[in-house]
Amino acid sequence: MFAIACTLLILEIRLPHPGVDGHLWTNFVALWPSYLAFVLSFFVILVSWIAHHDAMQLIRAPTQWVMLANGCALLYVTFIPFPTAALAANLGGPEVGTAVAFYSGTFVFGSGAYNLLLETIARCELRDPRAGAEAVERIRRGYRLAFTTYLVATGLAFVAPYVALALTIAVRVHLLRIRGLRERIARTSGHWPSV
Amino acid sequence: MFAIACTLLILEIRLPHPGVDGHLWTNFVALWPSYLAFVLSFFVILVSWIAHHDAMQLIRAPTQWVMLANGCALLYVTFIPFPTAALAANLGGPEVGTAVAFYSGTFVFGSGAYNLLLETIARCELRDPRAGAEAVERIRRGYRLAFTTYLVATGLAFVAPYVALALTIAVRVHLLRIRGLRERIARTSGHWPSV
Amino acid sequence: MFAIACTLLILEIRLPHPGVDGHLWTNFVALWPSYLAFVLSFFVILVSWIAHHDAMQLIRAPTQWVMLANGCALLYVTFIPFPTAALAANLGGPEVGTAVAFYSGTFVFGSGAYNLLLETIARCELRDPRAGAEAVERIRRGYRLAFTTYLVATGLAFVAPYVALALTIAVRVHLLRIRGLRERIARTSGHWPSV
Amino acid sequence: MFAIACTLLILEIRLPHPGVDGHLWTNFVALWPSYLAFVLSFFVILVSWIAHHDAMQLIRAPTQWVMLANGCALLYVTFIPFPTAALAANLGGPEVGTAVAFYSGTFVFGSGAYNLLLETIARCELRDPRAGAEAVERIRRGYRLAFTTYLVATGLAFVAPYVALALTIAVRVHLLRIRGLRERIARTSGHWPSV
Repeated sequence: MFAIACTLLILEIRLPHPGVDGHLWTNFVALWPSYLAFVLSFFVILVSWIAHHDAMQLIRAPTQWVMLANGCALLYVTFIPFPTAALAANLGGPEVGTAVAFYSGTFVFGSGAYNLLLETIARCELRDPRAGAEAVERIRRGYRLAFTTYLVATGLAFVAPYVALALTIAVRVHLLRIRGLRERIARTSGHWPSV
Repeated sequence: MFAIACTLLILEIRLPHPGVDGHLWTNFVALWPSYLAFVLSFFVILVSWIAHHDAMQLIRAPTQWVMLANGCALLYVTFIPFPTAALAANLGGPEVGTAVAFYSGTFVFGSGAYNLLLETIARCELRDPRAGAEAVERIRRGYRLAFTTYLVATGLAFVAPYVALALTIAVRVHLLRIRGLRERIARTSGHWPSV
Repeated sequence: MFAIACTLLILEIRLPHPGVDGHLWTNFVALWPSYLAFVLSFFVILVSWIAHHDAMQLIRAPTQWVMLANGCALLYVTFIPFPTAALAANLGGPEVGTAVAFYSGTFVFGSGAYNLLLETIARCELRDPRAGAEAVERIRRGYRLAFTTYLVATGLAFVAPYVALALTIAVRVHLLRIRGLRERIARTSGHWPSV
Repeated sequence: MFAIACTLLILEIRLPHPGVDGHLWTNFVALWPSYLAFVLSFFVILVSWIAHHDAMQLIRAPTQWVMLANGCALLYVTFIPFPTAALAANLGGPEVGTAVAFYSGTFVFGSGAYNLLLETIARCELRDPRAGAEAVERIRRGYRLAFTTYLVATGLAFVAPYVALALTIAVRVHLLRIRGLRERIARTSGHWPSV
């Protein structure tokens, strides 16, 4: 689903009909909001994929509740192409604030779903015994930081849309960086990180 | 296919062209029928996925007949984005009854395909020996309940479309709940449910 | 790819814009050519999937040439949604002959690709030793029959389009039936068919 | 993702609305730029797929940096349907030079991403020990040749667009051929090539 959602993003980028408007090169350049929204959402889905993969490794088999929470998380991922198209259509326009708020609001919902997923996993009796309590706690801290940031960004979007947009990306870069750090430590100490 | 059908649902949600109509926020709000239809059909496909997974675990390998019945079930899943788009375009409109009847009628066909799949599996000489007759009977009861409910909902749609729509969702929630109950019992008694 | 091509077929079925034309029920009924083309092409892709699966089981690993022939076969499968849309737009119309000829001509190309795939597999030094020469010969006879039938159907399409369309489906039903017969014989004699 | 990107290409080929323009056969013929662009990009994605597969076999597990470089490579593959549609809309038209430059420029970016991926793999401590330095060097030479060719083709596109287009395809055919040669040598000497 992550792969499909990523790939569907490109369908939202369309050239105007030939002959109707200006030169081809002008049209390519005028589509910069679409390229930017495409790259941002591609990155968003990749990071969500890694986070989902990390969370799912904490359990041996999903229970009914984990499957339902997982369904909410996947619903969010599947939804992303729509706010992406809305963002692309309004970047640089007069209503960019509303578009960024909607985009960022989607992440509030998505982050809520991921937090729910983690809590059902933490309470799941099929949790992988090798995944200690502090591994869960570490992921939980990251998820809560993301949720708070998206909430702030959604409010900020109406005032300073581009700052809000940068904030939603920055928190993901930060989460990837601390994940990479953990991985480097684990490898130096001679074993792979369990999460 | 289930994953692809889920993800394609989002392509049916489209913003009106910028500049043509009102404010962006009004447009986001006006799309509520699309969001609702998206969430409903996403849930429908997820439940169909779980049901398909459960049924397929009853056999060791598919025979030609199981594959054909399976083809009908997958045809139904692949078809879902179309009645979903029709539902989204008519929720809150004067022809919502017809749209719900078509949506619900799709489930009558789909449920028929699932019943056919189960019967070919029950008669298949490659049935997993660990899947006892009562496991098949339990699934069969659920499938028949779903088929009857969808048939009733399709007729009801012309009179009370929203009640009919709620009914098609309610039967799926019910089936998920009894499946979850079975799972809980199986785990308490110390072994995973075979189905 | 087979799964994706199947699922993309549904995107070609679209309701006219609400308000613009007649009643919803009339619109649903008027789309019968789209439903028919959808079901036919879904069946076509499923049968191609089974045939591809059977052919690929003849080898242990693909060589460069098998991969190229396989690329042609996949190109054909990926192309199917386009002639399907053309067929749906012209069933019952004055130019149905041209549409069926194009649809059937796609199968001539596809069948050519499958024949090429089988010949590269038959000459491949990585052929599975359990796949005897007569297994290859049996599949080859089926592929040649299909190729000839599609060629005839393409010519016939301009004269009797619906007969030509029925012919392209009939040959696939026939191939599935003899495949099922083989499977039944193999199971009675106590071992699974290698192909 | 490669499979999905391939299959999405077909969605860019659309017939004009029936009744609006000329005869169906004329419409089929007039779409030749779309068919050509479809086949070219299908081939491009298949070759990228093989190259990606070869590169990924050099490591046992991806590190964070390999995953990021891999993300760039996948971003490129996912983007391909858009320049393909632009190419199809302008083949044979007055702005074909711009369209080929954009198409070829996409390959410059993509090839850059693949070169980055290979360098992170070459420096990755999880490199498969069976993948010797000369295997990496061989792939690196191919990637650099491709990068240079795409750069030349992008500049050439404004002067001789069809030559530039042929050049981007020719380099891929060349890379496939030397890969096939390597495979044949490896098989004659009695073992499979590690890459």
